[in-house]
Amino acid sequence: MERYCRQVFYYETDKMAIVHNSNYLRIFEEARLFFMEKIGIPYTKIEDAGILIPQVDAYVRYHQTLKYGDELCVDVHMTEFNGARMKYEYQIYRGSDKALIAEGFTSHCFIDEQTRMPVTLKKRMPDANDIMKANIG
Amino acid sequence: MERYCRQVFYYETDKMAIVHNSNYLRIFEEARLFFMEKIGIPYTKIEDAGILIPQVDAYVRYHQTLKYGDELCVDVHMTEFNGARMKYEYQIYRGSDKALIAEGFTSHCFIDEQTRMPVTLKKRMPDANDIMKANIG
Amino acid sequence: MERYCRQVFYYETDKMAIVHNSNYLRIFEEARLFFMEKIGIPYTKIEDAGILIPQVDAYVRYHQTLKYGDELCVDVHMTEFNGARMKYEYQIYRGSDKALIAEGFTSHCFIDEQTRMPVTLKKRMPDANDIMKANIG
Amino acid sequence: MERYCRQVFYYETDKMAIVHNSNYLRIFEEARLFFMEKIGIPYTKIEDAGILIPQVDAYVRYHQTLKYGDELCVDVHMTEFNGARMKYEYQIYRGSDKALIAEGFTSHCFIDEQTRMPVTLKKRMPDANDIMKANIG
Repeated sequence: MERYCRQVFYYETDKMAIVHNSNYLRIFEEARLFFMEKIGIPYTKIEDAGILIPQVDAYVRYHQTLKYGDELCVDVHMTEFNGARMKYEYQIYRGSDKALIAEGFTSHCFIDEQTRMPVTLKKRMPDANDIMKANIG
Repeated sequence: MERYCRQVFYYETDKMAIVHNSNYLRIFEEARLFFMEKIGIPYTKIEDAGILIPQVDAYVRYHQTLKYGDELCVDVHMTEFNGARMKYEYQIYRGSDKALIAEGFTSHCFIDEQTRMPVTLKKRMPDANDIMKANIG
Repeated sequence: MERYCRQVFYYETDKMAIVHNSNYLRIFEEARLFFMEKIGIPYTKIEDAGILIPQVDAYVRYHQTLKYGDELCVDVHMTEFNGARMKYEYQIYRGSDKALIAEGFTSHCFIDEQTRMPVTLKKRMPDANDIMKANIG
Repeated sequence: MERYCRQVFYYETDKMAIVHNSNYLRIFEEARLFFMEKIGIPYTKIEDAGILIPQVDAYVRYHQTLKYGDELCVDVHMTEFNGARMKYEYQIYRGSDKALIAEGFTSHCFIDEQTRMPVTLKKRMPDANDIMKANIG
């Protein structure tokens, strides 16, 4: 698990004066790529190897709202990884009082940048594959 | 059911050269508000009555990708509505070949703009409530 | 000159309940690519030829604001084009009363997708170059 | 002057694999609000006093590009402030090699949240007005 925190940006709010629902998928992405960098597999390294990681599905459950002025924190876990696919789970908290704001998950696969066909990290980046496996949880 | 179509915008793409995953929630919103306008309940009318419709949860399943140059079409259904909550389902197609690009759902509740407490459309906007009920499907 | 119109999207608003200032550059882009398509040079055709058109500079003057529920219209002109660079000017109006909402310009150059070095449309796409020149104004 | 730095987000890139031109206005906003917070006038405090700060105009000159994986830094100056209006200037650098990526400015006025009419910070928030004046430069 890694914890990723930052301030809410003004432009993330909508006319309800709360962070727009679509931005939660962007926050998930920030937290996920932060996680990958923290465990030593920055996404740039994977893209440099000609591999892309598109999103397969995504779910968000909105409990409370985030306002401009709030700090947000994301607890991000990689809960599944088998070399061909992986799944992340996220809990978004408000920094000030640790209130649970939203939670959700995203699933991803690995594809070749050129062919856009599925590949396994196990075959293409065995070292990265091992590190990923060691960080499931 | 209503069908909503438009061109993909260049700024919706990311460095994979496809529409970024978060934009699907924005496209869902465009289609949902189009649906409400089409059935005679534009969201502006609901907000003018002091009611907001935040998102409760959302799910997206990505099947294929959208590129700049593609037209996208969304088939949007309001599948549930009980006066206090409602649910929408969406299928996004590529306009040219009707390929299924993504599908998903969003759930929503009604809250008072001032108190931010739940309200029912049945009590606050009975006519709108009746129209909504008549368009479940 | 071409005129491009569409509805304001809910997610384009910010907590001031107006379209966020950054979205005007996105609206400029929508209008500019609409213009290029209208004159017969869709941007996809240029990218297929291995040419990119990055933005060199941009200016926006905000006169009034756009709200959710508004239609926006953009009058877009290509005011300069010399084969290596081009400039567009934009006036954004509210559809309902033709009030001037914002105006501005963007400048662009042509670069090779691989080398990222400047190229001229005159050399690489002489037919497109002629059509562009014929549409200055 | 204040310096604001953060990583580029993946979703900020477009299909040219660079940060989309519109996001520079968002980065300017992040840096500007960071500046205001640093000098002791967080924007939340101004909004709590019923004052909004819409953008009057904006200019961006793009020199180089930002990619995913880059850190960006913004040097932000408030170059003009007269109680009724203010102007900020920005230089965006790449963190790794201090290359100048873009520069620009934004101008702003103060309006009453309810009436949407111009107000002066001098009248409405004299202490904030003094702090602002002391930080021109």
